[in-house]
Amino acid sequence: MKTTKLTLWRGKLNEIDQSIVDLLSKRLAVTKKIGQYKKRRQLPHFDLIREKEVIARLQTQTRNILLREKLPKLYHTIFSLVKEGYVLDNAPPIPFPKIGIIGLGLIGGSIVKTIKFQDPKILIYSLRRKNTSKNKLIKAELDKLEDLVKAVEIVILACPIDQVITYLRRIARISKNLKKKLILMDVASVKGEIVREMEKLTDANTQCLATHPMAGSEKSGFINATTALFTGKKWIICPHAKNDKTSLQKVKQFIASLGSESLELEAQEHDKYLAYVSHLVFFLSTLLFSFVNDNQLEALQLAGSGFISVTRLSSGNAVMHTQISQKNSIHLAKLIPHFSTLLNSVDLNSPQLAVFFKNTKKKRDRFLQKLQTDL
Amino acid sequence: MKTTKLTLWRGKLNEIDQSIVDLLSKRLAVTKKIGQYKKRRQLPHFDLIREKEVIARLQTQTRNILLREKLPKLYHTIFSLVKEGYVLDNAPPIPFPKIGIIGLGLIGGSIVKTIKFQDPKILIYSLRRKNTSKNKLIKAELDKLEDLVKAVEIVILACPIDQVITYLRRIARISKNLKKKLILMDVASVKGEIVREMEKLTDANTQCLATHPMAGSEKSGFINATTALFTGKKWIICPHAKNDKTSLQKVKQFIASLGSESLELEAQEHDKYLAYVSHLVFFLSTLLFSFVNDNQLEALQLAGSGFISVTRLSSGNAVMHTQISQKNSIHLAKLIPHFSTLLNSVDLNSPQLAVFFKNTKKKRDRFLQKLQTDL
Repeated sequence: MKTTKLTLWRGKLNEIDQSIVDLLSKRLAVTKKIGQYKKRRQLPHFDLIREKEVIARLQTQTRNILLREKLPKLYHTIFSLVKEGYVLDNAPPIPFPKIGIIGLGLIGGSIVKTIKFQDPKILIYSLRRKNTSKNKLIKAELDKLEDLVKAVEIVILACPIDQVITYLRRIARISKNLKKKLILMDVASVKGEIVREMEKLTDANTQCLATHPMAGSEKSGFINATTALFTGKKWIICPHAKNDKTSLQKVKQFIASLGSESLELEAQEHDKYLAYVSHLVFFLSTLLFSFVNDNQLEALQLAGSGFISVTRLSSGNAVMHTQISQKNSIHLAKLIPHFSTLLNSVDLNSPQLAVFFKNTKKKRDRFLQKLQTDL
Repeated sequence: MKTTKLTLWRGKLNEIDQSIVDLLSKRLAVTKKIGQYKKRRQLPHFDLIREKEVIARLQTQTRNILLREKLPKLYHTIFSLVKEGYVLDNAPPIPFPKIGIIGLGLIGGSIVKTIKFQDPKILIYSLRRKNTSKNKLIKAELDKLEDLVKAVEIVILACPIDQVITYLRRIARISKNLKKKLILMDVASVKGEIVREMEKLTDANTQCLATHPMAGSEKSGFINATTALFTGKKWIICPHAKNDKTSLQKVKQFIASLGSESLELEAQEHDKYLAYVSHLVFFLSTLLFSFVNDNQLEALQLAGSGFISVTRLSSGNAVMHTQISQKNSIHLAKLIPHFSTLLNSVDLNSPQLAVFFKNTKKKRDRFLQKLQTDL
């Protein structure tokens, strides 16, 4: 009798949840129509003011105080869903009917999921891994690299950085013998060395293109791959002297078809910028967690949301970050002592401290605002 | 005609949103019943496995891929709502019928909102500010500190740290003359100096209690205050030699009534721990943003979610953080060079780097897991 009551309520919850999800689906169908309508009339697609109005109106209609206060968070998630759908709906078609991929981790997996979402007819081939993934999205898992290269128009290298050059060389050798046109693109986080090698390997048959999507997560692996990982994000291309216009154009269209915006950058520039906004950031996040954990373990019980977000990256893929740190060691080895000196020069009792905190807040708020309006 | 179509769709969206919010309210009503039922039978309240099952089942029932992938995020927000409601529902009653508060920023505002949520009959008095807030939650905004002290059983100092000691002295002087029992508690982020002063000021009439809720946000001010800010969080009390048991007990009940768990710590220990998990963290976050912004502004256009979360705290209240840094300069001045040396000792080409990243990931994943099961 007692369990019946609980079972009854849980049944009720299941019904409610199902209705909520159905309504969310309906909501997406309506916003899709609105998106199409706005596109035809060239009206602006996203309206931050209307989003705020929607949340504010719902808040006045909600009597549950806790729910009312959580509505902005809930609706920001729903709005991001609408935006992702809009961007993917309005993306150009994928310019390759057959795609090969090597590496089905977070990035490779998300590329595959987004391709299949955009066009289920595209055939995707991968190399067979030790533990066969039996992934429904993949047309075939092949044993031989040669078979993969034969089957497709483009091979995406989404493998660990230290394997990229090995695969580039092996595939370029195969492609040369096949006398067919192949695009070979990578998605690694450090570009200098790869671009130098790509320029050597690029010829009439094989166009090697260096790219890097500005998207990721501290959660790694295919299991955490998602369809809209790249939507609204930048995707860098570092062209070299032997890249032809047609291939560059095709890769740009491919990037756009996944919902991303491509951006050309020189490889050295890419590596320098990434050292600032990504590689150093991972280092600080990881060193901070280890510093607190190893020197003052008792303090961890007091850690709040600030500590959690600043140390988030230290839960990232250790192997990948080791390789990134080493491959980009030239830039990183300059930044680390530079930042360390800056940190050491902090004068806690200087009247300038207040000014510094205030100015940094202003700069960051401006950066966030630009980010929001750019979306 | 064209606007009519858009208006029609927007009307449809409004209807859907209203239904979603109604269903969420119903969902909360059912989970409230389940919570009461489980409490009566002393069953465990939260069930991470069941939460995962609910999300997984809804995912199998959802055909929209983008929605399916966002369901975990949406439902984690909904589950946190359920937990907040449960904790607040099962909290003890607020032990003070009349409460005074000085400072209606993020912390003061959130205390007021949570008090009113827990018991709308509690009367709250505040000092009148320059721009009268006309806050409906406040019974009266008084001009004189003396009137405030006369009216209440407890005064909460939620003002900037540098004003805490001034108010402590002024209120203790008034309270002494009134010959009535008053509890005076603060919520500042640095405790050493405050506790020393509190011990001097505590007498038969006035019990000064040093406390610090482990909750906050980079968003400051009453406008960002929320009801459940403290729910499930730790709230530190740093008792001193002159604190009597009754007052300590009452303050603990008050903290519990706001949904927090109180934790006793010696003031020096508090300041040392906070230097690790909060004050140094703010410094690194802020220095990192300023470092990138000032040295390589172009790199900011490539910044992704990692950079955004690691630099989040640099959007925090600059005045508050300046005062914290200075008040806790003894501990912070030790940590900063210590961390800076650690950073400078990084050897990017050491084979130990991979081991260090891997071990830190393990430690942090363990920390996160403990945090989840503690909730």
